[in-house]
Amino acid sequence: MKWNELENESCPIARALSVIGDRWTLLIIRDCFMGVTRFDQLQRNIGMTRHVLADRLKKLVEADVLEKRPYQERPVRYEYLLTRKGASFFPVLMMLFSWSEKHLPHDQVAPYEFLNAETGHKIEPVLYDDKTGSKVDGRNIIRKEN
Amino acid sequence: MKWNELENESCPIARALSVIGDRWTLLIIRDCFMGVTRFDQLQRNIGMTRHVLADRLKKLVEADVLEKRPYQERPVRYEYLLTRKGASFFPVLMMLFSWSEKHLPHDQVAPYEFLNAETGHKIEPVLYDDKTGSKVDGRNIIRKEN
Repeated sequence: MKWNELENESCPIARALSVIGDRWTLLIIRDCFMGVTRFDQLQRNIGMTRHVLADRLKKLVEADVLEKRPYQERPVRYEYLLTRKGASFFPVLMMLFSWSEKHLPHDQVAPYEFLNAETGHKIEPVLYDDKTGSKVDGRNIIRKEN
Repeated sequence: MKWNELENESCPIARALSVIGDRWTLLIIRDCFMGVTRFDQLQRNIGMTRHVLADRLKKLVEADVLEKRPYQERPVRYEYLLTRKGASFFPVLMMLFSWSEKHLPHDQVAPYEFLNAETGHKIEPVLYDDKTGSKVDGRNIIRKEN
């Protein structure tokens, strides 16, 4: 398997990595979810070079994860907004956040967290099977080879 | 933010990337979930060099995501098994799989899929808030800065 051929793999996880598996890219997507959408803000926040950031943003736009829109005319400045496809990546980030909080503890509190809008408590994300409405865990999954 | 300092970031997603953000690493973890646990199998499956694979496995063992165990005595050969911490990464992979299937379609069927052990149907993973037992979507989340 070659890195630049991942997008042609039949394994969905390999294909996903062709879009998000690059260094920095998940941090860009994270920032977009946090409302950081402008080039300079992203660059300052993440601390990557302008060249690399521009390249990763271009790829995310090509992959239809982000949409590039002008927010200022003279000079033209762009912001990067999550598309529907990008926005639907949120559950992946949320599970990653949760796994990390549990298993990679840190002495500082996270700079942000996700609360349930109705109750105000911190969300504890778990996987459910939408078809049965039951929790998914290692015990009730079968892995089937096709 | 420097790549080799990610593990010290207070943002859980950045910290997670210090463990899984490296090229190939998610594919190694995927294979471990698929029951591919031996060095030669992993190398054949993923097609990376032995040197890189050895390095990534070493890091995953150091991060307590994988455990290295001898499965043969002469010569000694090792297999790599998911620890509890590694196993609990499954929901992230499952959501990534699901996102990719929906948003990065492919003309070939996935080489594997996940079925509900009780009903035999394909699992449709969605995020729930464990505290309230309600579905998590963009509308009922508040992002709070700390």
